[in-house]
Amino acid sequence: MTGTGEPSRAAEPRRVPPRPLPVAVDTMGGDHAPEEIVAGAVDAVRKHDVRLVLVGKAARIRRELDKYGYVGKIPIVHADEALDMGEGALASWRKPRSSIAIACHLIRQGRASALVSAGSTAGVVATSRLRLKGQQGVMRPAIAVTLPTRPRPTILLDAGATADVKPETLVQFAALGTAYAQILLGPDRPTVGLLNIGAEPGKGNKLAKRAHELLASGSHGIEFAGNVEGHDLLRGRVDVIVADGFTGNVALKTMEGTIGAAFTEIRDAMTSSPAARMGALLQRRRLQELRDRLDPDTYGGGVLLGLNGTVVIAHGASRARAITSACELAHRLAAGRIVERIREQVAATRTSRFGRRTHAERESADRPEEKRPSEGPPPPREPAADTVPDRKEPPATP
Amino acid sequence: MTGTGEPSRAAEPRRVPPRPLPVAVDTMGGDHAPEEIVAGAVDAVRKHDVRLVLVGKAARIRRELDKYGYVGKIPIVHADEALDMGEGALASWRKPRSSIAIACHLIRQGRASALVSAGSTAGVVATSRLRLKGQQGVMRPAIAVTLPTRPRPTILLDAGATADVKPETLVQFAALGTAYAQILLGPDRPTVGLLNIGAEPGKGNKLAKRAHELLASGSHGIEFAGNVEGHDLLRGRVDVIVADGFTGNVALKTMEGTIGAAFTEIRDAMTSSPAARMGALLQRRRLQELRDRLDPDTYGGGVLLGLNGTVVIAHGASRARAITSACELAHRLAAGRIVERIREQVAATRTSRFGRRTHAERESADRPEEKRPSEGPPPPREPAADTVPDRKEPPATP
Repeated sequence: MTGTGEPSRAAEPRRVPPRPLPVAVDTMGGDHAPEEIVAGAVDAVRKHDVRLVLVGKAARIRRELDKYGYVGKIPIVHADEALDMGEGALASWRKPRSSIAIACHLIRQGRASALVSAGSTAGVVATSRLRLKGQQGVMRPAIAVTLPTRPRPTILLDAGATADVKPETLVQFAALGTAYAQILLGPDRPTVGLLNIGAEPGKGNKLAKRAHELLASGSHGIEFAGNVEGHDLLRGRVDVIVADGFTGNVALKTMEGTIGAAFTEIRDAMTSSPAARMGALLQRRRLQELRDRLDPDTYGGGVLLGLNGTVVIAHGASRARAITSACELAHRLAAGRIVERIREQVAATRTSRFGRRTHAERESADRPEEKRPSEGPPPPREPAADTVPDRKEPPATP
Repeated sequence: MTGTGEPSRAAEPRRVPPRPLPVAVDTMGGDHAPEEIVAGAVDAVRKHDVRLVLVGKAARIRRELDKYGYVGKIPIVHADEALDMGEGALASWRKPRSSIAIACHLIRQGRASALVSAGSTAGVVATSRLRLKGQQGVMRPAIAVTLPTRPRPTILLDAGATADVKPETLVQFAALGTAYAQILLGPDRPTVGLLNIGAEPGKGNKLAKRAHELLASGSHGIEFAGNVEGHDLLRGRVDVIVADGFTGNVALKTMEGTIGAAFTEIRDAMTSSPAARMGALLQRRRLQELRDRLDPDTYGGGVLLGLNGTVVIAHGASRARAITSACELAHRLAAGRIVERIREQVAATRTSRFGRRTHAERESADRPEEKRPSEGPPPPREPAADTVPDRKEPPATP
């Protein structure tokens, strides 16, 4: 941790907190790569003091950095290839030297804490699943997005990483969302709602009904607040909304599309007569603020949770400002030790899930291995990561 | 058909088109029953010349009719009980004499063509499924709603009748939606999109992927336009959007909730300063028009398709205006012979579905029992509607 030319205070008796690892930024993904990506990265360093490493074509990055006088001030790791925006999951196999793959590699080597990319969601998800691997104990990853509710945002997950899930996966998503909300929003016990088609417990499809039962059993450290419906998405009733990736994605895009359509219609209505146009002039600033707040480019982007490292997926259309926010978010999640928090949350969920299922579990649950020593989060250490939980779960069949 | 005191021209040689059967209106369902229900019904008769029969507590209905001088002008069928707004599916068994059950009975007896209710969706769906039974060949019913797109509306189904479906059910929903759009919107071959989480064919969960394959096989009279995503809901890209009842319900409610939230935010923004308030005054009329157009009470309500009779479910909060529209819609669908159209569409779908699936079907397809004699759809005619398509189907498998 020292030896990087920092003023080290090693002689002092008290322990110096380790300097945070840098966030790896994929400079080659996104509609406006690399110009806007590098511009956003420079701002993240300059204004927010986030440590970064830029991944992509070195010469090109240097040329961009030169515009801001930042050559040599942000480290660069060269990558030859990029995933095209149209490329999906397969590209992650075909291009092992893509900028995203290299960024994942940095995380695995312990040289970066997280990764930011504005590449195609499918490509980023597939590559990072392949390279970072699922975090121990987590069945499937989920994309968490932040909805622009007030007074504080609501987290929706899964927004599209995992389309087919089991009820138990939804319980895990609740754990992932809880960990994320603790870091992002602050509350110790964020409330979790299940996206469903009715408020009462018996509502929904088979998946939602069973997930409701599991969540309502209340023995896994999740503050379950019951079902929420589509019209609750923007009401801020809960901190976290859990859904399968299919439903979550449809809901998110429906919300974004409706906001867009509403603004278009309102603009039309506002400029439909001279009087109305005059009115619109008087309101321009306020409406622009509102428009900004509801713009996916502001609140947008998602975080892929459940892997051995944090992956922040910015919108493909991201401009510098969105990239700066994404870098900040990645830094904040890494500093909040999101991977470790998720592991703790998920371990609690697993316990109770199996506990609910068969009596046989109870005996084996007494064994001492509950407490895994200090198996570390993403990059540096990662010793006996997959030892523990497998032991406490004699199969669920009677 | 005569003998109701109408001027009958039975002596004339040419065939008189049968006078349409009345629409049965449940006067006891809804937050504003019976006042607003009866008021809306009276308007439907007075302004739109729709034939109705009112079902509910006779004395109470007469009192309401008296307000408009319509006692004796609209027939009444007495029903003692009503489903409460909170009551769900079970009530349909517990209350065989509820106003909805009686209205269904009228349809089965051939004394009404359709039914309109503003009762709880769960109660209306359960009761009419129980009393009217599924239409022959239709696996599961679906609720079709009309989205406020321009220049013409888009039909979304299923909005919540059937939460768990098979891929084949989605193909049938496409057939239901096609028949509905033909009557409501006019085009001969309405375009159908599948609600999914990506534009490409391989996207989605297992259900959507398989449904896409089936629909894209293109051999069942459905004009399949591929996948549509959440943000396409209000773009009017297709005439019909098909989804399972869970996803469709989440999407619809998300859209409604987002429209509501957007208007609230915009109103706040518009009245946040004296200048903005002045602007708002100048735009009031236009915005009110827009608000009205996007108000579920205007475009809202759904139609339950796939049963032996048409069921129009108005919003629970319906006022007279919404009830009038619902009566008109029910009348229009009955006059358009929706049940028969659905039978034809679904028969075409079945052919191709079974054709795709197993070889064994081929032999049994030749047997004559395909043709069930006359287990009736709603009321009057229903001759050989399902004769044709079953025969032309040597399976598509090589």
